[in-house]
Amino acid sequence: MQSAGGGKQNFDDLPSTFAIVGTIVHSTELSTITVIENGVLHVADGKIVSVGSGGDAPEGVTTVRLTSNQFLMPGLIDSHIHAPQYPNMGLGYDKTLLDWLDTYTYPMETKYSDVEFAQTVYRKIVERTLQCGTTTACYFTTIHPETALLLAQEAAAQGQRALVGKVCMNVNAPDNYTETTEQSVTSTQQFVQDVANLGCDLVKPVITPRFAISCDMELMTKLGKLAQQNNLHVQSHISENEGEVQTVAEMYPNCANYAEVYDKAGLLTSKTVMAHGVLLKPEEVALLKERGTSISHCPTSNINLRSGVCPVRTLLQSGLTVGLGTDVSGGSTESLLDVMRSALSVSVQKGFDDSSQQPLSYKEVFYLATMGGANALSMGNEVGCFKAGMHFDALVVDLNAGPGTVVFEDLPLKPLEMVQKFIYCGDDRNITAVFVEGRELKATAAADVRQFD
Amino acid sequence: MQSAGGGKQNFDDLPSTFAIVGTIVHSTELSTITVIENGVLHVADGKIVSVGSGGDAPEGVTTVRLTSNQFLMPGLIDSHIHAPQYPNMGLGYDKTLLDWLDTYTYPMETKYSDVEFAQTVYRKIVERTLQCGTTTACYFTTIHPETALLLAQEAAAQGQRALVGKVCMNVNAPDNYTETTEQSVTSTQQFVQDVANLGCDLVKPVITPRFAISCDMELMTKLGKLAQQNNLHVQSHISENEGEVQTVAEMYPNCANYAEVYDKAGLLTSKTVMAHGVLLKPEEVALLKERGTSISHCPTSNINLRSGVCPVRTLLQSGLTVGLGTDVSGGSTESLLDVMRSALSVSVQKGFDDSSQQPLSYKEVFYLATMGGANALSMGNEVGCFKAGMHFDALVVDLNAGPGTVVFEDLPLKPLEMVQKFIYCGDDRNITAVFVEGRELKATAAADVRQFD
Repeated sequence: MQSAGGGKQNFDDLPSTFAIVGTIVHSTELSTITVIENGVLHVADGKIVSVGSGGDAPEGVTTVRLTSNQFLMPGLIDSHIHAPQYPNMGLGYDKTLLDWLDTYTYPMETKYSDVEFAQTVYRKIVERTLQCGTTTACYFTTIHPETALLLAQEAAAQGQRALVGKVCMNVNAPDNYTETTEQSVTSTQQFVQDVANLGCDLVKPVITPRFAISCDMELMTKLGKLAQQNNLHVQSHISENEGEVQTVAEMYPNCANYAEVYDKAGLLTSKTVMAHGVLLKPEEVALLKERGTSISHCPTSNINLRSGVCPVRTLLQSGLTVGLGTDVSGGSTESLLDVMRSALSVSVQKGFDDSSQQPLSYKEVFYLATMGGANALSMGNEVGCFKAGMHFDALVVDLNAGPGTVVFEDLPLKPLEMVQKFIYCGDDRNITAVFVEGRELKATAAADVRQFD
Repeated sequence: MQSAGGGKQNFDDLPSTFAIVGTIVHSTELSTITVIENGVLHVADGKIVSVGSGGDAPEGVTTVRLTSNQFLMPGLIDSHIHAPQYPNMGLGYDKTLLDWLDTYTYPMETKYSDVEFAQTVYRKIVERTLQCGTTTACYFTTIHPETALLLAQEAAAQGQRALVGKVCMNVNAPDNYTETTEQSVTSTQQFVQDVANLGCDLVKPVITPRFAISCDMELMTKLGKLAQQNNLHVQSHISENEGEVQTVAEMYPNCANYAEVYDKAGLLTSKTVMAHGVLLKPEEVALLKERGTSISHCPTSNINLRSGVCPVRTLLQSGLTVGLGTDVSGGSTESLLDVMRSALSVSVQKGFDDSSQQPLSYKEVFYLATMGGANALSMGNEVGCFKAGMHFDALVVDLNAGPGTVVFEDLPLKPLEMVQKFIYCGDDRNITAVFVEGRELKATAAADVRQFD
C-alpha cells in the first residue's frame, strides 16, 4: 500500500470509518466485471457508505491508497464446504461418492464426538479459508451438536461470516454415526437456538439434512417444517452421482425424481442451496427455479470423485442461481480461487462434448464466486458486491505479492488483466487483506485470537 | 529437518558428500510409486552413490534426517516451456491457438531483441521454476540468438538442468519477427556452439523449429540434418489444435499427415520431444513410436486455448513416451505440480466421454512428472529416479510447510498419503529443498547469485 497525502500505509488498526482509494472491481451480473479506476470506497461501522470514482476520499476520513498492482474486490463466497472433512483433503480419490462416504468420510466424521479434535480442525479450517479470502462460508459439520456449535463459535471468534449446519442422518448410516429421527430434530432445534444465543450477527444456522439417502421422508419433512416456520436457511446435496440418483429413485418410488423428494419434504425454498446438480433433469431444474432454490457448483469435487460435470451453462440459462463450492474434502482445495480455475477448466471440457455448454469466462467465474455465491445463499442484498448499505466484505489483491503473478516493470497491467492474472495464476499470497464487516482479518487469522465467549 | 546423532539440521552448506535419511519415494514405471521407508540416499559430487533402506547413513558422512512429515522425491521435469511468454501467463485465453499466437505471443516474443528485458524475464523464470521444483526444463526462447543464450547462461548460473532452444521460423510469421532460412540455420549453428562454449554440463542446446506452419520444408530439413549430424535434442509442436492441423495439411499436400511432415524433414528422432499431440491419428502415433519420439502433455494449455484434450491413456498404451509440460504461457502455471493436478482433472473428464480413456491416477502423474519427463527428454539414464550413478536431482517435500497440506497431530499420514496430499493440495511452499546435481538451490534461487561468466 502506498501512503499519499493523509493516507495510511496499511490496514492495521483501521478505525471503524475509513476509505480505500484505488482500482475497485466487482460484478453485479454474469459476464460483466465493473471496473472503477481511481475509485473510492467509504466504509463506516462495517457497512459501505458509498462507492464512487474520482479518487477523492471524504475529508477527514482515514484513507488507504492501493498501489497500481493492487485492486479491491468483494470477498469470496464458498457455498458448500464440509469443515470436518478437512483432514481428509487430498486423500481417497480412488473411490466414487457412495463408497467414498463409507470408506473415508463417515469414519472421519465420527471423530467429531471428540471436542478437542473438533476444536483443532474447526479453528484451522476457519483460519485457512479466511487466508484464502473466503469471507462467507456455508458449512456442513457432523451429527454431533456440541461440536457443531464449536464451528459456529470459531467463525464468530475469527470474524468470518458463516452459515453453519448440524448434519442430520437417520438411515443408511453407520451404526456408530447415526441418529434417531427424534434425536436429529431435537438436536437441530437446540443447535438453532444455541447459534442464536451466540449473539453474533455474522453466524447463522442452516438446516442440514445430509441427503435423501441418509434421511427418511419423516425426518426431512420435520426439518422442512422447522426451516419454513423459522425462515431458516437450508442446505443439502442433489444429483451428484449416478449411483446416488439410482438409490434415491429406489428409496422414493412415489417421487418422479430426486428434486421432488426434497420438494415433498418442503425443503426446496428460496433459502435453500443444493450442492452439485450434476445430473438434474430438465423438469428438476424447472422445479428448483420455481422454488427459488440454488445450486452450489463444486467442480474439483466432481472431478476427484468422478461424479460427472455439472452443466453450469444450462443451469444459468434456465435461470437458476449458481454459486461455487470447495466441497472439502470431495474437493481437494479450501481455496475458492482454485475452484474458480477448476470451474473454468471443466466448463471448457464440457464444451468439447456438448456444444450447448459454451465455456465459462473468467468474468463469469468471478461473478459466481462473489455475487453468484451471495445470491445462492440468499444473501445477495447484504454481500457479494459493493453498494451503499451492504456489508463491507472485501479482499485487497496484490499482484506483486504472489509468486505466480509477477508483474514486470516494463509491462504494467490494465485492471482487467490484473483480474485475469489473479484468477488464472494467483493464490492466497496475493490476498493481502481480508475484510469481513469492515474488519481486517488476514493478519490476525493465523494468530490465536479468542475474543468470543 | 531433525538433527539426530551426528546429523545436520538443514541443507545449507552441505559438503559434496552427504546422505539423506528418511522416507524416499520415486517411480521407475507407470502406475507404481516405490516407497523406501527409513531410506538412506548417499550422494557424492552430485551423483547418487547408493539408495537403500535401514536408516543407517554411511559412517562419517554428513547426514540430514527428514522429519516424519517430509519425504524425498526426484525433481520435477518440465518437458515444454516457453520462457519468453512468462509475462503473458494468465492473459489472453479468449483466443484459440493461431489467433492467440498472432495477438499475444508473437508481439511479446518480438520484445526479446531487448537484452535487458530478456535478462529480467529469463532470470525470473529460472528462479521461479526452481522454487516450484523444476530441476530440468526444456525451454523455447525466441528467434533472437543473443538473448536465447542469456537463458542458457541463466540456467547455468542458477544451477538448473536445462535444454534451451533458439526458435526457428521463416514463414507465416510477422514481418518484424521472422528469419530467412539462412539466418535461421546459421544462428542455430552458432547458438549450439555458444551453449557448448558455456562449458556447463547442466545446459544443452535443443534444435527448435517452432512448428510446421512457421518453418518451411527446406528449413526443417536443414535443422533435421543439423540435429542428426550432431546428435542434438529436438523439440517442436504437433497436432495441438484443429485449425493448426488443417493448415499443415494444406501447406504440405504431399505428406499423409502432420507427423509425416516432420519425418520427411528428419526431425523425428529418439531425441525429439513434440508438445501436445492432442489430435494425433493412429498412424501418426505408430510413426512417432517407431522413431522413438516423445510427447509432452500440456493439459493446462490445452484447456486455456480450448485446443482439446490429449488422449494420454491411448498414447501410453501405444508405447509412446510421455512427459508433462507447463507450456507457459498457453499454460497458466509455471509449476509442474499444478500441471500434474491438471493432468488428473482432464483425464477424468476425458474418461466421461471415452471409456477407453481410463483416468490417470496420482501415481501415474507422479511418474509422468519425473521418470516420464526424463524419458521424454531422452535423459532417463541420468535423471528422473534414484539409482546409483544417476545425477542427484531431488526435492524435499514437507507437508507441514504448505498451508494446504496441514497434517493434524492425531492423524499422521502414511508415505503414500503424504504423496497424495502433496499432489492434490500442495504448492511450492511444500518444496523446502531443491537439489540439482547434488547442489541445494531453493534458498539461493530467489537471491541474485551470479557466479557464471
